[in-house]
Amino acid sequence: MRADGIQRRTIWPAPGSDAVFVIDQRALPHRLRVERLDDLTAVERAIHNMWVRGAPLIGATAAYGLALQSNVGASDAALRDAGAWLRASRPTAVNLAWAVERMLRGLLPLPESERCEAAWRLAAAIADDDVATNQAIGLHGLVLLRDLAARRPGRPLNVLTHCNAGWLATVDWGTALAPVYQAQAAGLPLHVWVDETRPRNQGASLTAWELGQQGVPHTVIADNAGGHLMQRGQVDIVIVGCDRVSARGDVCNKIGTYLKALAARDNGVPFYAAMPISTLDLTLHDGLAEIPIEERSAREVTHLSGRAASGEVLEVQVTPDGSAAANPAFDVTPARLVSGLITERGVLSANEAALREIAR
Amino acid sequence: MRADGIQRRTIWPAPGSDAVFVIDQRALPHRLRVERLDDLTAVERAIHNMWVRGAPLIGATAAYGLALQSNVGASDAALRDAGAWLRASRPTAVNLAWAVERMLRGLLPLPESERCEAAWRLAAAIADDDVATNQAIGLHGLVLLRDLAARRPGRPLNVLTHCNAGWLATVDWGTALAPVYQAQAAGLPLHVWVDETRPRNQGASLTAWELGQQGVPHTVIADNAGGHLMQRGQVDIVIVGCDRVSARGDVCNKIGTYLKALAARDNGVPFYAAMPISTLDLTLHDGLAEIPIEERSAREVTHLSGRAASGEVLEVQVTPDGSAAANPAFDVTPARLVSGLITERGVLSANEAALREIAR
Repeated sequence: MRADGIQRRTIWPAPGSDAVFVIDQRALPHRLRVERLDDLTAVERAIHNMWVRGAPLIGATAAYGLALQSNVGASDAALRDAGAWLRASRPTAVNLAWAVERMLRGLLPLPESERCEAAWRLAAAIADDDVATNQAIGLHGLVLLRDLAARRPGRPLNVLTHCNAGWLATVDWGTALAPVYQAQAAGLPLHVWVDETRPRNQGASLTAWELGQQGVPHTVIADNAGGHLMQRGQVDIVIVGCDRVSARGDVCNKIGTYLKALAARDNGVPFYAAMPISTLDLTLHDGLAEIPIEERSAREVTHLSGRAASGEVLEVQVTPDGSAAANPAFDVTPARLVSGLITERGVLSANEAALREIAR
Repeated sequence: MRADGIQRRTIWPAPGSDAVFVIDQRALPHRLRVERLDDLTAVERAIHNMWVRGAPLIGATAAYGLALQSNVGASDAALRDAGAWLRASRPTAVNLAWAVERMLRGLLPLPESERCEAAWRLAAAIADDDVATNQAIGLHGLVLLRDLAARRPGRPLNVLTHCNAGWLATVDWGTALAPVYQAQAAGLPLHVWVDETRPRNQGASLTAWELGQQGVPHTVIADNAGGHLMQRGQVDIVIVGCDRVSARGDVCNKIGTYLKALAARDNGVPFYAAMPISTLDLTLHDGLAEIPIEERSAREVTHLSGRAASGEVLEVQVTPDGSAAANPAFDVTPARLVSGLITERGVLSANEAALREIAR
């Protein structure tokens, strides 16, 4: 997608395959900063500290991390250790584990001398596949949006999204926002309500920024506002991303998603999750009981960064000294609240039969 | 309640009845700042700009505003104009209109020469009544909390609250937090989950601060987290305040309340609103259709204030330049999601028969 008017991906290899470049998402929306990651340690840090985030992009970044590792050591032990370390850097999103598995499955059978070149090729394939997947999700989602728009003629379609499941959460296009970008390309008028998505504000900082860069009309709202807007008929569809989906269709996504799904159900608003099939974890059934929920630092709740009047980006404390904070980063929306899953192979019902069928 | 170790109310008259003092809530939690309001204009500004907020405190402040007006002009026209101006300063909370009405009803029948003294007496009575009301709400709420605690022995009771309906939202004690303070006084172990309550962060800044001042164990959470905590059995009861309740029991309160009510219902968690009877508006039936919802400045969403590392309290921008924001300040929770209303005359069902009966 476009950023500062230039067509870019969120991650790309250095020409000599000795590093990868990523957009440091912590600097957005105030600055577009590109960081060079030279080795596995830098990649692990970039994932753990959320320079890059979003389940699909984490997967692609981990793949490039293994490629970087293969530059300096491609033994079975070196690759397995690197894979285990990367997998532990963020516990919730399944794409990370999926990308590491795909890399190891492709590399370990090869002679050690061939692994490095193969690793860079395979990481590039994972990135390219992500782009193709998201384009397909966008086109399937566009059909949904067209249907809804036909039932509400004469005004732009109102889409509500939570967190960032856009271009910045993937290598390109995004998952939840891919249908929005396809609709824009198709000339379908729409407007996006952007949940700011506390505590890290990925909606206000990333989704609003990337929609602005592509010229998509949008309005930022507090996470508290979505239910009220749905009560007033101001939301036609909710589309979110997902970090892991269980076999029965429970959707694990950014904390707060469940509340929007409840409001959507209460107001008859369709609620969809955009799901690359790599996000499906058929080893789990009950998403509520079985998906590990990352508990992040309390400081993400007590402190917040933004641009001061001076232009400087700095952190301010919003709570009193001495007040504790808790920060569960994800929640699980039960399948019963999910109208459907938008995948690269079509739109599915959130149930086990449909999910096992699509994954074959 | 205690603030910096001193027992205080949130509003009190100057000894010579030529001003009122209020705590400027915009400076909390970083500083306890007392402001002197010398005239009606200062009172209107303090309400409109939310130096004071919370439905009961707004009512008491408006009453003192009319007392200040009576110092300089107590004709029918002067008092009526002042009342109309104050009523327009915040449209949603009904207590503001209620307090203005009570003042005018008490003053207009009197000879003009007696109105000034009567106005100060009546404003003081409104403030004292608020304190007594909230103490009674606290004691009725304590019965609820004791019942719940008896069913969950061996661990502190977990209460979730939204926004600030505590001491700072009233003259003293609070509404939703009054049962918490009574439970603390009664030695009932409890812990409060504090929704930060974007966009103005009254939970993170005011509720966390006042709970800390009284030594009540509490944890601040993003507004997005409450549903997840309920799914995990970590919330025993939700208690919120209210700004206006319709005859059939629809509860208008700070934006986001409705989402917590939905999650409470989905997880079998009791959801109560603490309601001074002055908050009841029997002239309205359908809260969703009839209660006016204040739309506040977009800047409350795009900017946020906090304490920088330097110690300075300043405002930072969290959204990209050029992104619009919307800021509905309240929502309406339908009566069907409300387990009950905690009033100064007991705990009621949220239905028209019970509400008409209690208001007689």
